[in-house]
Amino acid sequence: MAATNASGTSAVRYGIMRDQVRDMEVVLADGMVIHTGSLAAKSSSGYNLNGLFVGSEGTLGIFTELTLRIHGISEHTLAARASFQTLDESVQAVISLLQAGIPIARVELVDEESMKQINRYSETDYPEGPTLFLEFHGNKEGLKQDVALTKELMDDHHCSALHFESDTAAMNRLWEARHHVAYAYIHNHQGKKQMVTDVCVPISEMSGAIRDARKAVEASGLPGGIVGHVGDGNYHIILMVDPENREDLQQADKVNEHIVTYALERGGTCTGEHSVGVGKKKYQEKEHGDALLVMRKLKQALDPNGILNPGKVLP
Amino acid sequence: MAATNASGTSAVRYGIMRDQVRDMEVVLADGMVIHTGSLAAKSSSGYNLNGLFVGSEGTLGIFTELTLRIHGISEHTLAARASFQTLDESVQAVISLLQAGIPIARVELVDEESMKQINRYSETDYPEGPTLFLEFHGNKEGLKQDVALTKELMDDHHCSALHFESDTAAMNRLWEARHHVAYAYIHNHQGKKQMVTDVCVPISEMSGAIRDARKAVEASGLPGGIVGHVGDGNYHIILMVDPENREDLQQADKVNEHIVTYALERGGTCTGEHSVGVGKKKYQEKEHGDALLVMRKLKQALDPNGILNPGKVLP
Repeated sequence: MAATNASGTSAVRYGIMRDQVRDMEVVLADGMVIHTGSLAAKSSSGYNLNGLFVGSEGTLGIFTELTLRIHGISEHTLAARASFQTLDESVQAVISLLQAGIPIARVELVDEESMKQINRYSETDYPEGPTLFLEFHGNKEGLKQDVALTKELMDDHHCSALHFESDTAAMNRLWEARHHVAYAYIHNHQGKKQMVTDVCVPISEMSGAIRDARKAVEASGLPGGIVGHVGDGNYHIILMVDPENREDLQQADKVNEHIVTYALERGGTCTGEHSVGVGKKKYQEKEHGDALLVMRKLKQALDPNGILNPGKVLP
Repeated sequence: MAATNASGTSAVRYGIMRDQVRDMEVVLADGMVIHTGSLAAKSSSGYNLNGLFVGSEGTLGIFTELTLRIHGISEHTLAARASFQTLDESVQAVISLLQAGIPIARVELVDEESMKQINRYSETDYPEGPTLFLEFHGNKEGLKQDVALTKELMDDHHCSALHFESDTAAMNRLWEARHHVAYAYIHNHQGKKQMVTDVCVPISEMSGAIRDARKAVEASGLPGGIVGHVGDGNYHIILMVDPENREDLQQADKVNEHIVTYALERGGTCTGEHSVGVGKKKYQEKEHGDALLVMRKLKQALDPNGILNPGKVLP
């Protein structure tokens, strides 16, 4: 399990995935079976093993059972699509929404190129500019007021088209289009392979980061675009590469390296939700500094023979 | 820092304290200084040291700097006070509110005896039955609808008096009364010492737990009452004891032991927010089982000479 929220769901209203875990049954390296938490909503008893084990990518123990927090289904749900002239204005619009304290359930950014891929694949005719996909949860009257304020804020950022959906079928179509963006790129670039980056920056750095990411894509010469869980400052670059073409692979790596460095220099993280695995081991020292020594001690204490998912997470 | 939410604030809407921590500067046993997180809203990079260190009570490192998540101030805030005939109905009313998905910002239970102590100390004239103190955050129209549904649900549980406050001074008076309940007991029982218990149970067990806790107070013969952060299933018994009277001290310990055992047998925790310290070391094995061995390994790995807050948390 990754330590993050479900794809396409912003942490703004419900928090990240890690915070939803009440308890886990974990099999340790020596075969011992433990529980990491309890069924209580909060606890200050002992060390917080939920916190340590969630996101450890199988390197500290194997999870055999999870108990998760549940949330009630909201009385009303509304989805929206907002198109902008520039990427920068779409990001600024999200920041305004967050600062206004509107309890958005999801907010996803899809850039111009990715909207084109969506239209081609999903046979939709959404405006092909930088677009926000939004979802609001709440009671009926509260949502009306949230929608009114959202319209005002979108206007302030020169939103060129704002469209709300309240019936379930239309909302599902909207989110299906968003969720198929990765498949759209694959379908529209037969024979190429997809590479996806994943960084997360502080919200205050998001605008510059995404502007910079767009430049990096263009400089690479590769087909690609940006999609972001922008309520959290987390975004991905999707790049299409020819796996036989060394130049393509080098360009893709260069983009990845570039946005990771950008994020780390601004207090962000090298991976928001895709985890470290093997590919991001090389950034662990730069991101964590001496804290990496602590992580090594923890691994050594819990898996002294290195038998759990060896070679992952720690360089 | 305790691993929990601020006193009187339920985790229902904003999550527990632990989830608000973005980063900490920590001095380790060997003098090394590390950072446990980043400024990003989410990360899946390396082990989640925030999760491990928050709530470790100074036994794994010393915190010298914290970076916390901030929340916008809601457009509107409303406070309410709801009185009931029985403790059980007040708890059932909270469960109904939670199940209805009303995003309550705070919900606090104060039992009949504690309401009497409040009135005597704060010179208020609140009805002296089991009482809920509530706070709602949101936009104006949304709150109206939340209030209407709350009224209905309180009626269903035979609420005898429901009073809303929207002006700041009246809201402050209400919360001040609630926050002074501990002082009220001390002031009204000169020469006695206060003992406060702290357990947290799953919401589904809360009704039975609080009924049982009330019986335990009565059986003890000590002056005392129950106050609870009931949105989380977390509650306290306040008992007034004569520190020179061995019988008093034994009765208080018996109550504590009783409610901890009750909570642990139902998937709860021996401490919701007051932490382990020395007093709850004896329950760690019962609560955590073999996971306690993991906690010991972590302590050994990070503080092999046992110099950090020695004798705390782990038995």
